[in-house]
Amino acid sequence: MNSLGGLALALDKAAKATEATLERVLPPPHGLHSRIHEAMRYAIFAGGKRLRPFLVIECAGLFDVADARARRTAAAIEVLHTYSLVHDDLPAMDNDDLRRGRPTTHKAFDEATAILAGDGLLTIAFEILAHPETHPSAAVRCQLIARLAEAAGANGMIGGQMIDMVAAERTFDAEDVMLLQRLKTGQLFEFSCEAGAILAEAGSEHQARLRAFARDMGLVFQITDDLLDVTSTAEKTGKAVGKDQDHGKATLVSIYGIEGARAEAKKIAGRALAALEPYGARAAALRDLLPYLLTRES
Amino acid sequence: MNSLGGLALALDKAAKATEATLERVLPPPHGLHSRIHEAMRYAIFAGGKRLRPFLVIECAGLFDVADARARRTAAAIEVLHTYSLVHDDLPAMDNDDLRRGRPTTHKAFDEATAILAGDGLLTIAFEILAHPETHPSAAVRCQLIARLAEAAGANGMIGGQMIDMVAAERTFDAEDVMLLQRLKTGQLFEFSCEAGAILAEAGSEHQARLRAFARDMGLVFQITDDLLDVTSTAEKTGKAVGKDQDHGKATLVSIYGIEGARAEAKKIAGRALAALEPYGARAAALRDLLPYLLTRES
Repeated sequence: MNSLGGLALALDKAAKATEATLERVLPPPHGLHSRIHEAMRYAIFAGGKRLRPFLVIECAGLFDVADARARRTAAAIEVLHTYSLVHDDLPAMDNDDLRRGRPTTHKAFDEATAILAGDGLLTIAFEILAHPETHPSAAVRCQLIARLAEAAGANGMIGGQMIDMVAAERTFDAEDVMLLQRLKTGQLFEFSCEAGAILAEAGSEHQARLRAFARDMGLVFQITDDLLDVTSTAEKTGKAVGKDQDHGKATLVSIYGIEGARAEAKKIAGRALAALEPYGARAAALRDLLPYLLTRES
Repeated sequence: MNSLGGLALALDKAAKATEATLERVLPPPHGLHSRIHEAMRYAIFAGGKRLRPFLVIECAGLFDVADARARRTAAAIEVLHTYSLVHDDLPAMDNDDLRRGRPTTHKAFDEATAILAGDGLLTIAFEILAHPETHPSAAVRCQLIARLAEAAGANGMIGGQMIDMVAAERTFDAEDVMLLQRLKTGQLFEFSCEAGAILAEAGSEHQARLRAFARDMGLVFQITDDLLDVTSTAEKTGKAVGKDQDHGKATLVSIYGIEGARAEAKKIAGRALAALEPYGARAAALRDLLPYLLTRES
């Protein structure tokens, strides 16, 4: 098996473990309010690569963190990521009808239910982390919660979404675009990787190293996403493409050009790999992520 | 000064202390994403009675909890309550243009910004609670976070909003309406009161007692709110009235009638007062809340 085959197996294993945990922690549909439970589950159990759970589980695996702890943390970041997709797809935001090849939550239910389902997913992320099964130390749980709130909040992911909204109205330079990406998608990647070191109580040096890896990995992810938006088809990606260009939004591709952006992605990928050096063979799957991202087609 | 004058002073003091804390904990407008900070502050600094902060501060005051801890917890519940109003006012939900006599957040900004501002307020509630300044014990902070997430989540406030959405489509009996109210508005009152006992590490008996007080106080609040919806004018309440009737929604007023609902509110208020008995003079302001709610005009 080549190394990308190993990565595919690791991704699949992380996805299955996280989905089993999500099945347990999400409320089953019941009562007069069953529609909210159904909408939350519809949004969560929609396939997807489960890339953030993979990062949590692999980074926790660098330090012998107990599986159940990593999986609950993986579930928390996945519900948080999913809430952001549900709200982002709303008519007032990106107005997307399709997500992973099927109707978005507000299309399958209605707008009000989608708003509430997103709110419910955001809320349960913190409930999962606060529970003693996530870690016996309350100090560790509080650190995870504080970091997730920071990464997802008004100066993190939500701030990035706000910048994205004003992006069409002004001229962005490369630095602005990098800030947008670092906040909008990078922050959750940073949390996912750092969480492994927090769960292990491995100390601030490992936290900083894994955040640096995540930051670069996130940039590679974003540049290749922007490249796909320009070069791919809706059939391959399962969502609308060409949207950035249509909206006149600056991306690293529009600034550097297709070949320039590819070169930049390769350079940043090299830096990401260097950050993993101290972890040797344990970081094999994380390492394989970079060539995978550089060559992905969806 | 009569006792309602004392309550007015206590409410005002709690509101001012909480607003000073909110001023410090909410991010100041800055950067490319300043619009999100502005919208969050617009929604928060809109006046309002700050009833939930008052409950946190008064219940913490039953046990000698340090002021700063009670105020941070009060700020957390107020941002969470405010997020629920911002999302509830959206066109897809209640579609309200006015809140406390001025444009709702999506009217003053736009829908996308209001969705994100609500998300940002919900997120920062947990960030505030996770911070060591809220309580030196991480176990206490985690308990506050777990309880708030439960109270605000899909089986709490959000569940109540979901039930409210389906309320116009079916026939509700008194029990259904009580469940709706207990979830939609009651859960945050219960958290606010119980938080005082959690901050004091006073034990589960006090937690249960203050939750019981809050549950009954919340029902009185809701019944009088429903009565105002039927009997008051938009001028007095600063928001649209007669909406429940227009939407054909069952309330305790539509089930019991105006006089029947008034009698029910009085009976429940008596039970709420009885729960406060062990706290003597320290519970004076909490006690005064009941006659205030029973006679309020806005």
